[in-house]
Amino acid sequence: MNRVSSMPTVNRRISLASRPVGFPRLSDFQLVYAPLTSPGVGEVLVRSTFLSLDPSMREWMSDTASHTRAAAVGQVVPGCAVGAVVESGDPAFEAGDTVLGKLGWQEYAILPVTDLRKVDLSIAPISTALGVLGIPGLTAYFGLLDICNPQPGETVVVSAATGAVGMIAGQIAKIMGCRVVGLAGPEAGTSWLLDELGFDAACDYRATANGHGQLGRLCPEGVDVYFDNVGGRVTDAVIRLINDRARIAVCGQLSQDNLEAPEDGPRWLEQLVVKQAKVHGFQVSGFADRFPEGRAQLTSWLKQGRLKYREEFSCGIESAPQAFIGMLRETNQGKQLVRLTE
Amino acid sequence: MNRVSSMPTVNRRISLASRPVGFPRLSDFQLVYAPLTSPGVGEVLVRSTFLSLDPSMREWMSDTASHTRAAAVGQVVPGCAVGAVVESGDPAFEAGDTVLGKLGWQEYAILPVTDLRKVDLSIAPISTALGVLGIPGLTAYFGLLDICNPQPGETVVVSAATGAVGMIAGQIAKIMGCRVVGLAGPEAGTSWLLDELGFDAACDYRATANGHGQLGRLCPEGVDVYFDNVGGRVTDAVIRLINDRARIAVCGQLSQDNLEAPEDGPRWLEQLVVKQAKVHGFQVSGFADRFPEGRAQLTSWLKQGRLKYREEFSCGIESAPQAFIGMLRETNQGKQLVRLTE
Repeated sequence: MNRVSSMPTVNRRISLASRPVGFPRLSDFQLVYAPLTSPGVGEVLVRSTFLSLDPSMREWMSDTASHTRAAAVGQVVPGCAVGAVVESGDPAFEAGDTVLGKLGWQEYAILPVTDLRKVDLSIAPISTALGVLGIPGLTAYFGLLDICNPQPGETVVVSAATGAVGMIAGQIAKIMGCRVVGLAGPEAGTSWLLDELGFDAACDYRATANGHGQLGRLCPEGVDVYFDNVGGRVTDAVIRLINDRARIAVCGQLSQDNLEAPEDGPRWLEQLVVKQAKVHGFQVSGFADRFPEGRAQLTSWLKQGRLKYREEFSCGIESAPQAFIGMLRETNQGKQLVRLTE
Repeated sequence: MNRVSSMPTVNRRISLASRPVGFPRLSDFQLVYAPLTSPGVGEVLVRSTFLSLDPSMREWMSDTASHTRAAAVGQVVPGCAVGAVVESGDPAFEAGDTVLGKLGWQEYAILPVTDLRKVDLSIAPISTALGVLGIPGLTAYFGLLDICNPQPGETVVVSAATGAVGMIAGQIAKIMGCRVVGLAGPEAGTSWLLDELGFDAACDYRATANGHGQLGRLCPEGVDVYFDNVGGRVTDAVIRLINDRARIAVCGQLSQDNLEAPEDGPRWLEQLVVKQAKVHGFQVSGFADRFPEGRAQLTSWLKQGRLKYREEFSCGIESAPQAFIGMLRETNQGKQLVRLTE
């Protein structure tokens, strides 16, 4: 085994202090110091470089999460990160290798090598393995293309369009020749969707208040495809505008995840019948056997400059809870990451 | 032209007196006497034998109906019927031919021959052209098989299971090797679904009250496929029980059609994400190019005795409004028809 000489002996981690009720609070998280140990045979010690924050993590913190995904109170909050191997107990990995895995909200992690994937740094900056070339990019790719099958000239609406998935879904729809309308929380701003990413229209959720007045003007020919990350009243408004044979991919329901009690809303199944429309909930894991295809296409578009991205960073593991809470409120512009090393 | 000698000179018809608000009332309809005229060139005069009553007619009576489908106040209520040609203005039809078309709620109708289809009486009784071998049968066939793709051993739930579409959808699911659970209004009774049609379980909507207690016991392995004719709280309860990759075909929303004001209900899109499930609204017209295939398969199953049906008749055109209102309340067992001749 090899180990860098300046190795610290303490690992800083964020554990779940209590299951959030409604919107998570800082007090639901706790900074913990733990001794740093060495990897066993078949394991590696990784120092995380970037930690990924994703809306889906909110559900992992609930007691409704399935057993395989649930975060345990008193344990490190689960989450994906990229980092560098510091010490290896397996001949397939050596110190300095860049890897990706479920490293958790901590500075260092020891994982079996079977749970890690090497990241090719020649393609793009390491952080993209958690964004445009990672799970968010793949989610946008399969959710938009496979579930919605967008056609040139169709109108595509994306909610949480300033988020890691939404910004990519909208751009893929542009590549497909669609007219793309982005909707997002008021704090993230939407002008960069127009100016930098090439969306045709964008506005914040207030456009969907009182029915669908402003949204209707942004979608004068109705809505053919809706990529939904938010749900709630935003989705109610979009569904009133769907065209015949509209396709709706439901990726997440950010507006509902932090409610203390479930919310009622208008029933709209009749609208699906009238429009012969479909709504398809999905998880990117359902497309796992096609990740290489998706990653190759996303990489190609990225290299061609057809796909752009924004990232927003908080610094230090202690910043993770606040950044996570902000992301749930859609204050971030683009992919939300925690930077753990200089 | 040929004309039977005993031809009456008066046509009795039901016109829409006013657009129903909420549940239709008898006073929304009016019995009208009109003079009987002769068909022009390319038209035929048909005496209706059976008039079909279908839940979808309720929407035609609303001012939200699309222009091509809307029933006009003061005009004959639209609807399909089978009947016999009485007088023909076209060489392709002759008196005595059995035909099917949108004859409306009246004893006699004059239609262009292009709007009529001849019915083959050698296959099954004439009334089946409006039920198991007609639009309801085709709706069940394509909605269940094409949209839901049921697999052997899966649990299929059908709402409004005692109706013209539901009773066929459930039986097709049985033919596909599924476990079939029928739900229906309390007045239609459900025991005949078990005893005559071979459903595995059946109960009325009270099983879905207070969440899904009784329904959960009827579906111990969850719900893989849901053929929805009803919506509302019944559908809320079924959706709580769906399995991974469940398919939901939405055919109608009987519980919502007669509300005076739209109803709110729990939001359940998150459940679609968790289960990677899809909901697909459809109209049988979307499968029009495949009606011959569907009719051939339904006919084959019918001849083999694998498909059974019930019909309920009211008598005389004046009985149509009451029978229609009863059907909206699911008091009928099987396909609801109005018998217009002895």
